[in-house]
Amino acid sequence: MRYLWSFASLLLVMSSLTVRSYAKENKMELNLMPWPAHIELTGGTFRLNQSFTVEVTGNPADRLYGAASRMLRKLSDRTGLFFSQDYLYRDSLVKNPFMIIHADRPGKLKLYEDESYRLEITPTHILLTANTDIGALRGMETFLQLLEADSSGYYLPAVNIMDHPRFPWRGLMIDASRHFMPVNVIERNIRGMAAVKLNVLHWHLSDDQGFRAECKTFPKLTGMGSDGLFYTQAQIKEVIKYAAERGIRVVPEFDLPAHSTSWFVGYPKYASAPGPYSIERRFGIFNPVFNPTINKTYVFLGKFFKEMCALFPDHYIHIGGDENNGVQWNANPEIQAFMKAHKIPDDRSLQLYFENRLVPILTKYHKKAMGWEEILNPRLPKTAIIQSWRGKESEVNAVLQGYRVIQSKGYYLDHYFPASVYYLNDPVPDSSGLTAQQKKQIIGGEACMWSEYVTPENVDSRIWPRAAAVAERLWSPRDIRNVSDMYRRLDAVSLELDGLSLTQLKNQGMMIRRLAGGYDVKPLTNFINVVEPIEVYSRARTGKYTSYSPLTRVVDASVPDPEVARNFSYMVDGLVAGNQPDEDAFAIMERELSMWKKNDASLEPLISKSPILKEIQPLSVELSAIASIGLKALSDIRQNAKAESGWVNASLSEIEKAAAPAGEVKLMVVAPIEKLVKYAGGR
Amino acid sequence: MRYLWSFASLLLVMSSLTVRSYAKENKMELNLMPWPAHIELTGGTFRLNQSFTVEVTGNPADRLYGAASRMLRKLSDRTGLFFSQDYLYRDSLVKNPFMIIHADRPGKLKLYEDESYRLEITPTHILLTANTDIGALRGMETFLQLLEADSSGYYLPAVNIMDHPRFPWRGLMIDASRHFMPVNVIERNIRGMAAVKLNVLHWHLSDDQGFRAECKTFPKLTGMGSDGLFYTQAQIKEVIKYAAERGIRVVPEFDLPAHSTSWFVGYPKYASAPGPYSIERRFGIFNPVFNPTINKTYVFLGKFFKEMCALFPDHYIHIGGDENNGVQWNANPEIQAFMKAHKIPDDRSLQLYFENRLVPILTKYHKKAMGWEEILNPRLPKTAIIQSWRGKESEVNAVLQGYRVIQSKGYYLDHYFPASVYYLNDPVPDSSGLTAQQKKQIIGGEACMWSEYVTPENVDSRIWPRAAAVAERLWSPRDIRNVSDMYRRLDAVSLELDGLSLTQLKNQGMMIRRLAGGYDVKPLTNFINVVEPIEVYSRARTGKYTSYSPLTRVVDASVPDPEVARNFSYMVDGLVAGNQPDEDAFAIMERELSMWKKNDASLEPLISKSPILKEIQPLSVELSAIASIGLKALSDIRQNAKAESGWVNASLSEIEKAAAPAGEVKLMVVAPIEKLVKYAGGR
Repeated sequence: MRYLWSFASLLLVMSSLTVRSYAKENKMELNLMPWPAHIELTGGTFRLNQSFTVEVTGNPADRLYGAASRMLRKLSDRTGLFFSQDYLYRDSLVKNPFMIIHADRPGKLKLYEDESYRLEITPTHILLTANTDIGALRGMETFLQLLEADSSGYYLPAVNIMDHPRFPWRGLMIDASRHFMPVNVIERNIRGMAAVKLNVLHWHLSDDQGFRAECKTFPKLTGMGSDGLFYTQAQIKEVIKYAAERGIRVVPEFDLPAHSTSWFVGYPKYASAPGPYSIERRFGIFNPVFNPTINKTYVFLGKFFKEMCALFPDHYIHIGGDENNGVQWNANPEIQAFMKAHKIPDDRSLQLYFENRLVPILTKYHKKAMGWEEILNPRLPKTAIIQSWRGKESEVNAVLQGYRVIQSKGYYLDHYFPASVYYLNDPVPDSSGLTAQQKKQIIGGEACMWSEYVTPENVDSRIWPRAAAVAERLWSPRDIRNVSDMYRRLDAVSLELDGLSLTQLKNQGMMIRRLAGGYDVKPLTNFINVVEPIEVYSRARTGKYTSYSPLTRVVDASVPDPEVARNFSYMVDGLVAGNQPDEDAFAIMERELSMWKKNDASLEPLISKSPILKEIQPLSVELSAIASIGLKALSDIRQNAKAESGWVNASLSEIEKAAAPAGEVKLMVVAPIEKLVKYAGGR
Repeated sequence: MRYLWSFASLLLVMSSLTVRSYAKENKMELNLMPWPAHIELTGGTFRLNQSFTVEVTGNPADRLYGAASRMLRKLSDRTGLFFSQDYLYRDSLVKNPFMIIHADRPGKLKLYEDESYRLEITPTHILLTANTDIGALRGMETFLQLLEADSSGYYLPAVNIMDHPRFPWRGLMIDASRHFMPVNVIERNIRGMAAVKLNVLHWHLSDDQGFRAECKTFPKLTGMGSDGLFYTQAQIKEVIKYAAERGIRVVPEFDLPAHSTSWFVGYPKYASAPGPYSIERRFGIFNPVFNPTINKTYVFLGKFFKEMCALFPDHYIHIGGDENNGVQWNANPEIQAFMKAHKIPDDRSLQLYFENRLVPILTKYHKKAMGWEEILNPRLPKTAIIQSWRGKESEVNAVLQGYRVIQSKGYYLDHYFPASVYYLNDPVPDSSGLTAQQKKQIIGGEACMWSEYVTPENVDSRIWPRAAAVAERLWSPRDIRNVSDMYRRLDAVSLELDGLSLTQLKNQGMMIRRLAGGYDVKPLTNFINVVEPIEVYSRARTGKYTSYSPLTRVVDASVPDPEVARNFSYMVDGLVAGNQPDEDAFAIMERELSMWKKNDASLEPLISKSPILKEIQPLSVELSAIASIGLKALSDIRQNAKAESGWVNASLSEIEKAAAPAGEVKLMVVAPIEKLVKYAGGR
């Protein structure tokens, strides 16, 4: 008998492969992300109307009143309901509130703080309770994601949710050095973090390409090392406050001893070679490195960190430590003599000597150190946190030496991996041999946004929505791993973030209009919907990029894991897996292929007016060519006809041509069309 | 003989009605806005490639180097060219630059500063010269707007431009009180101002609904009067610097003696009634007003303005003065007794008594006063500037009394007038009876963005692109008044601003996605493209708005003067004026009407999922109904058939129904469809 399926049911079928026993269909339809630890639908709905009111009780920090006011406004914005309640304050009086938000005590912005909450929604009332107001903040985000609508209005499903994070450190690292990211970029990403319950902003503030934090003791750090693009201390305080109001910690990183060219533009005497230095404009690993053998380096860093430790309230300071190539050390006879005198055998040991003189400076100012995995050595205090980025070995190694670890390997967002790859990457290795106790030393992870190839215009589109998949991995139970359901919810989260003025959706439209030089963007949008940037190291290998190169081309407007191509791929996968699609599914695939087939004819006139588009012209031609092939294959499949081998072979060689990138983008429908052809030829 | 025309040629035909004698077709195709005082195309093009370089010479302020660097980056962003030149500094060495930007001296941010420039582009070099670096900034914006492309690449047409502003005061007022506008909203609007050569940001910082500027002497002003939504002094300095780098002055307004509820929340004793006061949430004219009869009011304001005069560097401070209803004064026996004792006959005289005690405070701190027209009185120093907002009479009156005036009557952007209305509103009245010398006292104008019905999300869409039409009115020669050419260039300016991260285009997409609760937005977009908000006072009359009402509905996502409706209207106007359209024009009109006819069927499913859309359902039905009517009328016209009068009458009554607003929006295609029907019936 013929098995009918539509695109939606295909997704459900695929979901069911890994569906958990708790999953009821209606629960699976909720748009929660990260998925809560425990959720139960209790039946019925709480209907929203304009008389809705909220009261905050208990003993929270002041921030909870502001957060509740913002929650009320977001609910009003999404529903268009004119709530009578305005702003909540500690002394606000609310009669018979429909929703009570209760927190026993103010939460502290520190590692291991309690972020659990409990959310009970019945048809008549809503109760959100938490031990700390930070837990209540997390619960409010869940509450907002529960909003649903039907033809009679807006409502929340009746639920019981008991939720808490799996890991206490759930970070997003933003590199503000290689491309400066103004305050509003940081703030909107903090809003995004809050929405998906990330709790640490790791702010990469210095690197070869720019020093971005104002230091009053050493004004030439930004005065000469930033092109005027830096955060004032007032702005830094503003960002810290903005994050704190959302229950998010801010951990600054000052990357040492390498990745430090920008320090030396103003202060060359602390480098291991005489200079002069200028701000590095290229990307990669460079030679400038602090001179760890002279005492004045530590005097300088002592004064520097004294000021920074007072500026940043978090208990942790990130001191970098990565990618020191040792070239300047090896070339400096005084450093070599020092190593000999102190029996320091190699560069790695010299770096550890440096780390072990640096960390006590932080201790003096009541801060704990964290750094990239290269800082690991037995003399580090056990309070130090190791950030693993090159492989799981370093993670296990650090754990075995008694350190706590956060995982970033596999969470680099500047690599254009699909969300599923980040999502399925668990911080705790499957076969690590670690004990349960040791596994607790793995305290979380961080999604990392390195900024070689992003600007304020497109950085959100590299972070979001994929960082939400990392957020779920770090918050939700380990066995929540259903990829297709994750994608369904990811699309909903992206829409939520869009409404919070993140720019991952809306700036693409802007970039496309600029590329097209006009409002007629349809053919270019169609094209961009099915391409993705080439792998980031391939971009690096072009050798043409500097920190002032234009990042406004098609490759920069295209996004990783593009939804249109992904959905087409899913449908093809279902088809070649032997599921016979219904007419709707065939129609969707045919419509997409026909559109791509015709697209080049519409795109060519745009390309001839917009020289910036010329580089993608060959790929636009290829898209049309392989779409024609796909149409023929689909038609054969539909008619149960076997495609003849001559055509199959010719088609496959055309498809191979289409796999070659142009303008640093590649076609993401090559693989599914290849599958269609092989399937049509192989039956 | 049949006269063939396309939509483009229709616009040219319409243009030619008012076309100036200098206009050559190719000059008319440039996207300059505001149009320069003198422009001459000299033939040939300067071709851009990646070896393009810029040098700054002369004696400019430092800002010109930063501005030249930004200009280079914008050019790179728009073309995708990898220029080898990075950032310009005073000591940068550039060998054989292709472009020289020369300024004789640093410009001062003050009234009447020289903003003229001269731009010469030949096929081999570009020379931009100005007396001041502010003039050079203006010229760089013209340079960027000259960028063109053809199939062989990007180029600039060879031109000679000599340009200077008609008026020295070209302002944009932004009300940050009724809805708070964060720093990034202000900064992006400053970028927009710079692009169209506006030079004064008038920052409305206090009103009944919120006090938005941090005052260290009186911290309760923002501590109790702002809901925590205010600018710190660090942020204010940042905004002033951001504006100064773009040659833009910042004039703060503290609105006194009325519009002052937010002052009294923390400091009730300066009010004319005892209080207590809370932040006003409604909109309109309210009773709270300073008590002008007690000395401590002036002591308070003396200390306040001492701090603000030091914070804001501009020579002018705006002291408001508008819409004092006198209610508190009339009800206060002590004030009445004071008036009697001092022979102050009425409220207006009492207000002038207040102004004349306030202005010397500003003088003491070396500032000049400006205010709304209500402050006008003979005892004001002649340095004071009067902002006319209610009618041309007050403008003429102030001029005759010897004051300088800026015009805002007819430039209120919160009224949803089409750009053409603002554009044709000249600050100098046609028949004022003023002498040439007196006319010079009219020093410019300001577009005003009052913020009752805008949020950071949609404020740009109310300011832009229409403010660019005001900018041209204030910069360009008086006789530049071709409306259809203005609209052509306005569309180009809107695209330019879009690329500068203004949000008038991209936030509409976001708002529509939120309204639709998903990515399938086409039918809602089609609908929104042909509606406009109802008149602003009609919104006020609904009585439901407060400062925390949702501004996320269809009315808030729709824009004044929507392009789709406007273009349709143009085509219909051409047709009923007796021009026989060619087949293309008929096809465009038919396609639009067919799309609207079918739109309701696609929109209904969205409406049933998104209750926030319910309010526009009746209008969606009407759109389909009148589009059907329009199609029939168009078909008759095309076939030279006279529509029968029964059908015409029935259609006109249906069209009348469709003119009624719903959800606070109205259909903008009602009038053109009515014209089609009448034309079809009347021939």
